[in-house]
Order: sequence, then C-alpha cells, then structure tokens
Amino acid sequence: MEEILYQAIPVLDHGFVRVVDYLGNDAAIVQAARVSYGAGTKQARGDEGLIRYLMRHRHTTPFEMCEIKLHIKLPIFVARQWIRHRTANVNEYSARYSILDREFYIPSPENLAVQSTANAQGRGEVLPQAEAEQVIDTLRTDSEAAYEHYLQMLAGDGRSGLARELARMNLPANIYTQWYWKIDLHNLLHFIALRGDTHAQFEIRAYALVLADIVSTWLPMAWRAFADYELGGAHLSAAQLKCLRRILNGEKVSQDESGMSAREWREFNTLIGRG
Amino acid sequence: MEEILYQAIPVLDHGFVRVVDYLGNDAAIVQAARVSYGAGTKQARGDEGLIRYLMRHRHTTPFEMCEIKLHIKLPIFVARQWIRHRTANVNEYSARYSILDREFYIPSPENLAVQSTANAQGRGEVLPQAEAEQVIDTLRTDSEAAYEHYLQMLAGDGRSGLARELARMNLPANIYTQWYWKIDLHNLLHFIALRGDTHAQFEIRAYALVLADIVSTWLPMAWRAFADYELGGAHLSAAQLKCLRRILNGEKVSQDESGMSAREWREFNTLIGRG
Amino acid sequence: MEEILYQAIPVLDHGFVRVVDYLGNDAAIVQAARVSYGAGTKQARGDEGLIRYLMRHRHTTPFEMCEIKLHIKLPIFVARQWIRHRTANVNEYSARYSILDREFYIPSPENLAVQSTANAQGRGEVLPQAEAEQVIDTLRTDSEAAYEHYLQMLAGDGRSGLARELARMNLPANIYTQWYWKIDLHNLLHFIALRGDTHAQFEIRAYALVLADIVSTWLPMAWRAFADYELGGAHLSAAQLKCLRRILNGEKVSQDESGMSAREWREFNTLIGRG
Amino acid sequence: MEEILYQAIPVLDHGFVRVVDYLGNDAAIVQAARVSYGAGTKQARGDEGLIRYLMRHRHTTPFEMCEIKLHIKLPIFVARQWIRHRTANVNEYSARYSILDREFYIPSPENLAVQSTANAQGRGEVLPQAEAEQVIDTLRTDSEAAYEHYLQMLAGDGRSGLARELARMNLPANIYTQWYWKIDLHNLLHFIALRGDTHAQFEIRAYALVLADIVSTWLPMAWRAFADYELGGAHLSAAQLKCLRRILNGEKVSQDESGMSAREWREFNTLIGRG
Repeated sequence: MEEILYQAIPVLDHGFVRVVDYLGNDAAIVQAARVSYGAGTKQARGDEGLIRYLMRHRHTTPFEMCEIKLHIKLPIFVARQWIRHRTANVNEYSARYSILDREFYIPSPENLAVQSTANAQGRGEVLPQAEAEQVIDTLRTDSEAAYEHYLQMLAGDGRSGLARELARMNLPANIYTQWYWKIDLHNLLHFIALRGDTHAQFEIRAYALVLADIVSTWLPMAWRAFADYELGGAHLSAAQLKCLRRILNGEKVSQDESGMSAREWREFNTLIGRG
Repeated sequence: MEEILYQAIPVLDHGFVRVVDYLGNDAAIVQAARVSYGAGTKQARGDEGLIRYLMRHRHTTPFEMCEIKLHIKLPIFVARQWIRHRTANVNEYSARYSILDREFYIPSPENLAVQSTANAQGRGEVLPQAEAEQVIDTLRTDSEAAYEHYLQMLAGDGRSGLARELARMNLPANIYTQWYWKIDLHNLLHFIALRGDTHAQFEIRAYALVLADIVSTWLPMAWRAFADYELGGAHLSAAQLKCLRRILNGEKVSQDESGMSAREWREFNTLIGRG
Repeated sequence: MEEILYQAIPVLDHGFVRVVDYLGNDAAIVQAARVSYGAGTKQARGDEGLIRYLMRHRHTTPFEMCEIKLHIKLPIFVARQWIRHRTANVNEYSARYSILDREFYIPSPENLAVQSTANAQGRGEVLPQAEAEQVIDTLRTDSEAAYEHYLQMLAGDGRSGLARELARMNLPANIYTQWYWKIDLHNLLHFIALRGDTHAQFEIRAYALVLADIVSTWLPMAWRAFADYELGGAHLSAAQLKCLRRILNGEKVSQDESGMSAREWREFNTLIGRG
Repeated sequence: MEEILYQAIPVLDHGFVRVVDYLGNDAAIVQAARVSYGAGTKQARGDEGLIRYLMRHRHTTPFEMCEIKLHIKLPIFVARQWIRHRTANVNEYSARYSILDREFYIPSPENLAVQSTANAQGRGEVLPQAEAEQVIDTLRTDSEAAYEHYLQMLAGDGRSGLARELARMNLPANIYTQWYWKIDLHNLLHFIALRGDTHAQFEIRAYALVLADIVSTWLPMAWRAFADYELGGAHLSAAQLKCLRRILNGEKVSQDESGMSAREWREFNTLIGRG
C-alpha cells in the first residue's frame, strides 16, 4: 500500500484516483472483531478465518474500522452518480471560488454504444465507426465552444467579468471536477459492489475497478472474503430456492409452475449454469 | 398546509417546489419532547414555550420527529450544491432511463452580477446591460445547441442512436432536473439556515426561501422559535465576547488590542450596531 | 393501517409497539420510482411488478420514500441492541429528567435457555424447570431490590435526595424504557431482516416480528416482494455457486474439493435441501 | 500524538480512553480546504488563518477529513448517552458472546449530589457525608450481589448454565463495557461541545474533557480555533441582539420590554457580564 500512496492511478482520459491516506488494515478488522466477540474467537480460527466468518454472516461493523482518503478526478456526470453514496466525507473543488480546467471526458470509439433495447438504462452494441466519429466530433466541438464562452463570460468587457458561480452553468456534464473522498471500508465495498457491477455505467465502473484493486492491495484478506461471498456469489429468491430444490430432487420444473416471471426464469437458469 | 399540498410553487424561470406529503406538526414536536423530558415539562410552560426551550438549548431530536416529502424541479448546478446535504432521501429523474426535457435556467438580467472582489465565492454589482444581454444570449444559444446535439446523438442514423447515459454528458449545468426529496425538520432547518443565508448563491437561496415559507405554514411555532434563535441571532467568538464586556464596562477597545483580525473586527462592529 | 393506528400491540411481558404516524404507501414507492426511471416503466408492468423489480435489483431509494413513527416500550438490554441501527430518529424517555417506572422484563420459563455450545452468541435447550424457577426468582428479587434502593436514594433523608441521573445507575438492564422511533422503510426492512432472523436474540426478535406484521398491513406489495426476495431467499458464495453447478451437471462433489469449511458445507447442504 | 498513542488515559474509577489510530492532522484540513477553495486561499492567509476562517464560517467539510479511532472503557449508563451520536463507527464488547468483567462505577463522595431544584436534568449541592456513604454502600452492595447472581446463573447447576445473552439482564447500568469508537473530527468536536458542556452529566463530561485534551495534542490549530469560536463563544437570539444594541446605544432596557422570558433575561445578563 505504501508503494501506491500518492500515486495518481489513471482512469478514463484525464481522470485519476490517488490514495492520500488510510487507517487500519486486515489486522485492525480482526482486532475490532475480537473486542466485540471476545477472546474465544481466537482459538477457533486464524485471522483470515475470522474475516471470512464476519463477511459471511454480515457482521459489518468491524469493516467500518478501516478508513481511506482518496483524491479523485472525474467527469461531473460520474460525480453525480458517485455522490449518491451518502456515508462518506467529501471536499469538492468549488467552481464558485475557482476556475475549472479545460478538461473534458471524450469517450474512445469502442466505448460509444447504442441505447440498449433490452435494458432501459443500458448500452447495447458499439456504434458504427462513422457514427462514433460523428458523436466524438460533436462532444469535442461543443465542449470547446462551451469552455471558450465560459472564459469570455468570466473575462467580461475587460474590467470585471461575470461571477464564477454563474459562468460555470454553461459547462457540460463531461467536464472534469475533483474531490477528496473519505470513506470507511464497509461503505467502500458497498460502492464497489454496486458501481463495479456489469449493470453500472462504464465510466463509473472504470473507477470502481481501480478502487477494487486498491482494496485488494490494502486489505488482501478482506478483499478475498468479499470477492468470494459478495462479488462472486449470488442471491436466490424464495421461489428460486424452492425451484432449485425440486430440480435437485429430480423433478422437472417449467417456468409456468416456477412462480417466476420470464425474466427471473432466464436469470435463474443462467445462474445455475443451464442458461 | 393542506391548502398548499400538491401545488407547484414556482422558483426561478422553470423550477418549482411541491409538497407531496408530510408527517407531524408542532404538536408532534411537543409530544416527542414530553416522552423524553417527562410530564414535568407540562406544567412549566405551554407548547410554544416548550418548543422555544428546545430550540434555545439545541435539543434537536424532537424536531427530527417531523418529516416532509417534496417534489422539486431545479437546475443541475443547484442540485449539485443541494445534494451535499446527506441526511435526506432522494429519488432523482434518471437521464440513463429517460430523455431530459428542453428546459434551461436563463438568469434574468438583474441576477447577473460581476465576480465579487471582496469575496472569492460571491457576486458583486449587477452587470452592465449590454454585457448582461451578451451573457444571456451566450447561455441561451449554447443551451439550445447542446440540446439539439443531444437529440441528434440520441436519434443516431435513424436506426438506433447513442445510449442515453452517454448522450447526456453534452448537456450543460443549467438544464433542469427534478427529484423527490424527503427530509426531517431538523435537517431541513439546517438546510434553510445555510442555503437561505445571504452568502449562499442566489439560485439555491431562491429555493431555500420557498422552503422557509413552507415550514412557517406547516409549523408556525417551530418556525418562530427558529427565526428568533437561529436566523435572527448571531454567534460571538470568545474574543468578541470579551471585547463586548469591556465595552459595556465603559472601556475603549481598539482592533489592535481586541485579538481580532481586521475582518472579524468589522463583522463584530456591524453585529453590535456600530458598523 | 388506520385500524391499528395508536393501538399498543403487546410484546414480551410489559412492552408494546404503537404506530403513531406514517407517510407513504405502496403507491408512493411506485410514484417515486417513476420519477427516477421514467414513464417507460408504466407500460411494462403494473405497480406490484415494478415494486418486485425494484426489490430484486436493490433499487433501494424508492423504499426510502415511506416513513413510520412508532412508540415503543422495551427492556434496556433490547434498546441497547436496537439503537445500533443508526439511520433513524429517536426520542427516549430520559432518566435524568424523570423517574423510571417499576417494570422489569421477567422471561417466561419456556424462554429461558442454556448457553449454546455450538454457537457462542446463542441459546441452546430450554432450562430444566427447577433451574428456570431459580433464575426467575433471582431476576425478580434483584429487580425489586434494585428498584427499592433506587427509590430510597431518590428520596434521600427526606429533604432532598440523590440526583435522578445518578440514582438510575443502580437499575438493571431488564428495566423497561420507552421511545419514539422514526425510520424510513428501507432501513426498517433492514432492521427486520437482521433482528427478525432466527440468530437474533429472542427478545428483540419478538419486536421485529411485530414490526413485520405492521409493514405487511401498511404496504402489502412491498412486504410480499421483501418476503420473496430477501426473507425467504438465500445468498450463495462463489464457492457454493460453483459447487451447485457441478452437482447439477451430474458430478459428485465432496467437502474436500468444495473449497468450503465444514460449517459452510453443512449450511450449503441444508440450503439446497440435502441437509 | 505519537507519545500518547496506545496509552490508556484513565477516566472515572475504572474507565479509560486510548488512541488506537488516527488519520490526518492540521495540514490535512488545510489541504482539503485548498482543494475546495482553490489556490487563491494560499496567498491570503497562513494555515492557522485558513483554519480559523473555516471554523468561523462553519465550512465543516475539511474538518471531516481527519479521523480518529479510540478504545474506550465506560459505564453502561454513559455508553447509552454516548451512542446517541450516530455519525460514528462502533464495535462494542458483546455480552452475548462474552462474560462481562466485575467492574462497576462507584462515584466518589464529592461527585454525589442532590437533585437540582432549578434544573430538572441536573445536580445541585453535594450530598451530606452520611447520606453519601449510604448511597455508596447501596451501589456497591447491589452491584456485588447482581454480579454474584450473574455468575450463578451462568454456572447453572454445574452442567450448563443460562445463556449469557439472558444472564446479563440482571446487571446494573454502572457496570463497565468497552468499545472501539471511530469518528471524524467534525463530529468529534460536536460531541465535545455537547458532552463537555457544564450542563452535561459529570460522568460523560469526564470523558469529553479527555477527548478535548487529545484533540488539542493532535490538532493544535483546529483546537484553538474551536476553543475561540465555539467553546468560549456564545449565541445571541434575535431578541438578545436587539436588546444589546439598545444598551450600547445608551438606552435602559428592562426585562419587560426585552421580549425575553425571565430565564433568558438572566442568561443574557450573565453572558454580557452584568449578571
């Protein structure tokens, strides 16, 4: 962890994640758990066994005993999703006090995709090349123009320009901002689970995957437990569980009698490897 | 309160605040306080006296027993300040799922001001008319262009356009979004104190003042106590308090011996009416 | 819901749960979800389908749009577990201001159990009758004595007794306290999932089951979705999922090659109905 | 700070506060503030000036960038007040898993006071010696008896005793518990302001004063700003401010025309040094 401290790990075209400071490690999780659950836990299992036990049984408070502070540069539309995670401390660069830099996120062609028809919130196939070039050109031209006008409004007639807090409203959602973000491990893992998921938007997911790497370096035991029990695991509904038991019992079950919708039925079959 | 329920109270050029639902009233604050502080509080003072006592001594938990749910339409740069208040529930219109409306905040000329030279985060005098017209023209033209390109990217080549979650990054911070926002009274009053303050940006302040009106209709006793103890009151530092006592004692005190910076000294003199 | 409003629903020997007020219903969840996810959600599925979709995909914010306020009477050792749920508003009866009532939780014999040997935090079999009678007698006698001494210390020598904030320290953890507790639905369901679980202590579980009943009356659709996807469902780890697929593929899998501990292996077999 | 790390600082008769870890220092507050408020803040004032500015204008987010983890041993009735501060992470010693130690808080005679007649929640004069001895004797005897019976119930008839989660309900509120408590600086200062206040109960105040010492060692600049602007300062209501201005203007003001209650009037006169 000391090796990556202060390093700006690049994300997207101009963004980064940088570890500024951290508190705690795998041993700190164990230490806190032993305060709660007593010395008896010592004999029964080693540190990694205890961390796995805590993760499996969702004893989340010991994981809150680790904290990390990051410096992050990210496009505003990503920042708007990110800030929905409320249990964290944030200090964002203020466009009321300061002038934003001329840096915009312009996706690379392979990340430009059509609207998904199957999923209202997602992306489908990659855009044909000509259309991708057109989109990139539009984004680039509009960003440049917006930023030029931002500077012009700030400059005014040469004496005293428009207040920064007003001029910034002309800037698009792909401009970069930056912030300090401090969060405990439990909430960070929840962030990674949600935003590192394949249903999350590609751009925030790029950050979540970097955060995942950081956690795996910082707390290898906690990370392995999380990867096994949460990331790689799956949740079954009551109907799915009932259905699974019938199948294992040798019964044939159709969607009709499963009590699942067509979509749940598909998800279930994919999950159990019959997809 | 029932009279204003569901009414969209206009704010700025296209925004609104609408009360969707609420829980509790002045009597509910009193009721919760009496659970905490016992029946003895009953004899000593009436309901309003008790509410004033709670406010004066910062017994904040009874105020958390009231809750309000609002539907709000607001520009994105206002939403970005707003969301920093973390102790609230939010459901925002998603530009991943849906197409944003063609509505942008364009300030009226009297609300366009130059950057303040005294205050790094504030506005100074109103912009000269010619410059104001220029700014409004720029904002309007850029907003329109950005929205046209947004629609074009969504439409694509006629078959299947760019994913909504990507196209939206071209839209500027003055486009309107909307959300459901649910918050308890204690945190709402804190929001009003910070965002209704004269140092807050005009645009979010416009919303805070509407929220203040709503609270004064909903909970007249709590509002009066808040206006007297918080909004209309003032905080003195240790140095200011010491200095005040010396003045009341007939001494002459200069800034040099006050222990205050020039700025604090000015603020102090304004506060006590010697500004 | 209106029928049970204000009714004290009994729990344990002297406790109760009473609905004081609430905000929102199933329709409010749907309404908030449609602000977020747009009109498109309307055609695809009815209200119950949408609520099930939100629950299945852990879109939790629409569930935060419902709020409930309860008046609860509970033993202090239960209150100490309860208060660990931080995202809620609380007004507790204050033993600094007021004198606590002479009411103690005395378990009935069938709820007195030996320390579990399998589970460090749990109960095993019911205590033999003679021993149960002994325990009940001890609890009753000690409670009575502690309360008598509490009153004596408060009374003092007849002029002015010990401060209430000091005298209360003599009272045991089975004395009853009461509070107003206000919480949003998302956090309430989390409470019910944790505290209504068979691993939770019997006494707090008794409250969680009453809360479950209240939610099922208040929000029948949300409750059914929660019961199907959360309460009745199960979580599989990556190792369990892999193992399940091998079994369904006709392979024989032993614990040795499963990558699971003995305990996880037992839990897995119980889960899939091979216990 | 490194010097006091891991040291158990004694509080009350058996309690302690021990710094386990911390993140950030005065420079970290400045660093976070400069991300938010831009480079311009650098020229204007040095680090201490900036911290004072942040404190005076209640820019609280940079103070959230420091975090501290403490190991604390405290009586349960203190823990019950403490836990009301929700924005913190806690791992408490679990009396479901482990057996509590035989340690009880027994106040020293000079801290035993009569119930205040002026203040429903407070203490008045110290108890006469004979009565104090009586109280101490009662507390000691009842604690010992409760603990003996706790052990007897746990031991049972020699084979298998009562479950720990049940036996603990016989223990009084002056028994000691312990926990890990992790909190950011902003919320810690709020805790110190409330619980270090002269209106707080003596026992929790003893802890708050130790926390104050720790902060003044850890972050001397932030502490001085807090002491000057918050601890040593005072809040004036609108009525008090108006009255003050009239007095400074040479007018005589009586309580009748002040708009204040008798109690507020007394508080006001004490505040301005005319008490």
